[in-house]
Amino acid sequence: MRILLDVMGGDLPSRELVKGGVSVGRKRRIDVVFAGDPQEIGRALFDSRVKPGGQFDILPCAETIRMEDAPVKAVREKKGSSLVLGLNALREGHVDAFVSPGNTGAVVAGSIFILDRISEIPRPGILASLPTLTGKEILVIDVGANSDCTPEQLVHFGWMGASYARDVLGIDEPMTGLLNIGAERGKGNRLIADTFARLEAGPLPFAGNVEAHHLLIDRPVDIVVCDGFVGNVFLKAVEGGISAVTSLLKRTIRGRAIAMIGALLMSGSFARVKKSLSYRRHGGAPLLGVNGVVVIAHGRSDAVAIGSAVEVACREVEVGLIDRLARGISGWREHGH
Amino acid sequence: MRILLDVMGGDLPSRELVKGGVSVGRKRRIDVVFAGDPQEIGRALFDSRVKPGGQFDILPCAETIRMEDAPVKAVREKKGSSLVLGLNALREGHVDAFVSPGNTGAVVAGSIFILDRISEIPRPGILASLPTLTGKEILVIDVGANSDCTPEQLVHFGWMGASYARDVLGIDEPMTGLLNIGAERGKGNRLIADTFARLEAGPLPFAGNVEAHHLLIDRPVDIVVCDGFVGNVFLKAVEGGISAVTSLLKRTIRGRAIAMIGALLMSGSFARVKKSLSYRRHGGAPLLGVNGVVVIAHGRSDAVAIGSAVEVACREVEVGLIDRLARGISGWREHGH
Repeated sequence: MRILLDVMGGDLPSRELVKGGVSVGRKRRIDVVFAGDPQEIGRALFDSRVKPGGQFDILPCAETIRMEDAPVKAVREKKGSSLVLGLNALREGHVDAFVSPGNTGAVVAGSIFILDRISEIPRPGILASLPTLTGKEILVIDVGANSDCTPEQLVHFGWMGASYARDVLGIDEPMTGLLNIGAERGKGNRLIADTFARLEAGPLPFAGNVEAHHLLIDRPVDIVVCDGFVGNVFLKAVEGGISAVTSLLKRTIRGRAIAMIGALLMSGSFARVKKSLSYRRHGGAPLLGVNGVVVIAHGRSDAVAIGSAVEVACREVEVGLIDRLARGISGWREHGH
Repeated sequence: MRILLDVMGGDLPSRELVKGGVSVGRKRRIDVVFAGDPQEIGRALFDSRVKPGGQFDILPCAETIRMEDAPVKAVREKKGSSLVLGLNALREGHVDAFVSPGNTGAVVAGSIFILDRISEIPRPGILASLPTLTGKEILVIDVGANSDCTPEQLVHFGWMGASYARDVLGIDEPMTGLLNIGAERGKGNRLIADTFARLEAGPLPFAGNVEAHHLLIDRPVDIVVCDGFVGNVFLKAVEGGISAVTSLLKRTIRGRAIAMIGALLMSGSFARVKKSLSYRRHGGAPLLGVNGVVVIAHGRSDAVAIGSAVEVACREVEVGLIDRLARGISGWREHGH
C-alpha cells in the first residue's frame, strides 16, 4: 500500500509531518510518498535516517495552497501545488490514498475536480469520528465540506456514514440520527424537518432526532447527520468546551500547594482523559463521496496526529471502501424512495 | 419590584422552584408571584414558613403547558395555563417581569402574542450569557427562538445584544462578532455571507467572524450573533464537551486509590471550576424584542438556577431595559442603512 502525504499547507512545518509519516510507515509497513518542497522533505528524511526512494519517496512540488487561499481559485491556478499533484497521483493510480492537513475547502474542491464523484453523489461530505464515554466512536457527517445543504444531500450523508460504519468499523446495522435542537418530532428548521421525513421514509435504520449535549456521553446512535456548517460549529464547540474545562482547571490549581499535589497524584488520570478525548488520536476525517480515498487531517496536526490520519486512510484502502461505498449507495438508492 | 415566576412546566417539581423564588425574594427584597397549582405552591410556601399574600403571592392556574406541547397550539388553547396567565399579568402591569423554566417555544410564542414586539422587530431572540476564562461573560444571541432566520433578523439580534451589553452589563462600546466556521471573510453559508455584509456596513462595532472553539477561552467579542438553530447546537455542544471531560475524569479515578486521594486534595479546585462554568449560576436567558421583561430558565432548573434567572430579570427591570432597548434599536436603525 502506498499513501501520499501532503506535507505543505498545514500549520506545522513539513519536517514534523515527515516525521509522523516515516513513523507510521515503519509501524504499518506501508510506503509513504511525501508531496512538498523536495529540499525540506529531503532534510527531514535525512534526520529520520531514511534514504529517499523505495518505502519513503518524494513528490517534488513548487507551490503551496495556503489556509487563506480561496479554494476553487487555488485549485485552478496552483497546478504545481502538493494538493493538485498529489490528487493527480491518486487519480492515476500511483498511490492508494491522499492525506492532507491543508486548506479543507481546497481539498474538497480539488477532490471533486480531479477525482470526480461516485454514484451520482452531488456533494461529498467530511466524516468526523469522535471518541465517546462509551469507548466506541460516534460518526458525524458533514463537518465542513458543505455550508449550504439540501435535504437530499443530508440523506446521502446518512447513506455514506452508514456504509462507512458497516464496512470500515464493522457495525452490523448502523443506526442514524439527525442533529437537531430538540428530541421531539417537528423541532428544528425547514431543512431538518424535510430531512427527517426523508430519513424516516428511507431504507436506513433511523432513530430520529439527537441533541448535541449527549452525543459524547450516551452515544445514542452510530452516525449523526447534519449540514456542514452546523457540524463544523458542533465540532468546534465541543472542542471549546473541553479546552475551557482543562484550561480552567490548570489555572485554578496554580499556586495552591495542596491542589497541585492532588493534580500530581491525578496525573495518570488526566493523561488518560486527555488521550481519550484527543483529536491527535482521532486525527483524520475521510472525505466521502469522491472517487478515491481522501483523508483530511487537522490543520494543527503534529507527527502523532498526521500518523493517525494516515492510519485512517490505510483502513479505508484495506477494506476497499470506495467500491463498497459505491455499491452501498446504489443499494440504499434502490431500496429507497 | 414584583417578579412573576412560572413554577409549572419545568422538569423539577414546583416546590423546588418555589424554594428558589422565596430565597431570591428574601435576598433581593423583591415580591415574587408564583403562577401554578395553588395547593402545591401553598404547601411549598408553608414549608418555607411563608404566609401567601404580601411579598410572596400565588396566581392560581389550572392548566400546564408541557415540554412536548406544540408551542403555538398550546398558547392558543391553554388559556388557563401559568404561562398564559403569567404573561397576561405582565402585560397588564401587575408584575414587572415573567420568568419561566417551561417550554421555550411556548414562552416565545406566548410573549409575541400577548406582549407584542417592540420597535418593529419581527422576531425576538434568546440571549445566552456564558462564563468565559477571562472572568467576563460572553453574550450569544439567538440560542433557540428562531430556527430559520433572515440576514435582517441576525442584524437585529446584533442590535439587541449590543443594547443589552451596554445597558445591563455597562460595556461602553460593545463589539459584535458573527459565529462562523472560519475566521476569513467569505467562509460559511449564504445566510452568514449576507449578514456579514450587512453588519460590516451597519452602525455596530463589528469584529467579523468568530469561531466556536475559542469563544469561552479568549472571549474575542462581547456579543456573538447566530441563528437560533446554530446557537442552540453551539450551546448544547459546549455543555456536552464540558460534561464529557468531567464525567470521564470521575470514571477514570474510580477505584484508583492514589488518583482518588489526588481528587480529594483537588476538590476545592473542582468546585471552583464547576461553579465558574455552571449554568446554575448563569441560569436565565432573556427573550429580547418583546414588550416586557421575559427570562427563560433552563428546563432542569433547581432552586439555585431559578434564583439566578430571577436575578437576571431584576437587573433588566432595574435599568429599564425595555425602554432602553426600544430607543437603542431606533438609534441603530437611524444610523444604519
